[in-house]
Amino acid sequence: MKKVRKFQRFLFPVLISATINLLSAGRTVAQNKSNYIRIAKIVVDSAQLDTYKAALKEGVETAVQKEPGVLMLYAVYAKEHPTQVTVFEIYKDEEAYKTHIQTPHFKKYKNTVATMVKSLELTDVAPIAMKAKQNH
Amino acid sequence: MKKVRKFQRFLFPVLISATINLLSAGRTVAQNKSNYIRIAKIVVDSAQLDTYKAALKEGVETAVQKEPGVLMLYAVYAKEHPTQVTVFEIYKDEEAYKTHIQTPHFKKYKNTVATMVKSLELTDVAPIAMKAKQNH
Repeated sequence: MKKVRKFQRFLFPVLISATINLLSAGRTVAQNKSNYIRIAKIVVDSAQLDTYKAALKEGVETAVQKEPGVLMLYAVYAKEHPTQVTVFEIYKDEEAYKTHIQTPHFKKYKNTVATMVKSLELTDVAPIAMKAKQNH
Repeated sequence: MKKVRKFQRFLFPVLISATINLLSAGRTVAQNKSNYIRIAKIVVDSAQLDTYKAALKEGVETAVQKEPGVLMLYAVYAKEHPTQVTVFEIYKDEEAYKTHIQTPHFKKYKNTVATMVKSLELTDVAPIAMKAKQNH
């Protein structure tokens, strides 16, 4: 009987913790209608591609790490056309985006890549369905 | 002293659970090189747009829920051109994608939308930087 109690004492806080996790895990961006979502398409000068990718990587990592309103930045390039870059961007709201483009790290990125970007196309989008496994 | 022990007994499993969560929270898709990532661009018949969006939503939700290898499907439409749909897709690996297109729910989606899709462009992509807040 004592063993059972001990086990219950152990199990109880674990269950509380697990429940809290389950409740928060279900959140997806699609459920927040104020999120500001956009797709950026960038064509990069092939001669400066590696430098551009390094600058973009630094910009993405700094923004998501430092800015509470930058929720997701997924930057990829087309395997068959490596100079064609796409960034899938999710900000908390439009205000968070406006804050983002005023930050020193964004301005640094813009200055660094000014001569590397051949074209930039920004498309505001709205969700149809946005589902991901936890941590993805 | 007894109270302290009781508290420790409570705290210990909570800390274990929290540590496990912290260790897993840092994972991002960019760190798994075998992930298969692609962008699908779909142009939809405007007369059937609502039906198409409902079918896509069902397909996305079923796939992420039922298939262990479907990590993320973010489906959006361009605000200024609602018939232009983009899906940002992340599968565990190419095998998981091949499994996905053989599932009954994917085949159902394909059959349902066959007359609604005016064009479909699939682009295989590779990550430059993929960062997101936890739960995004």
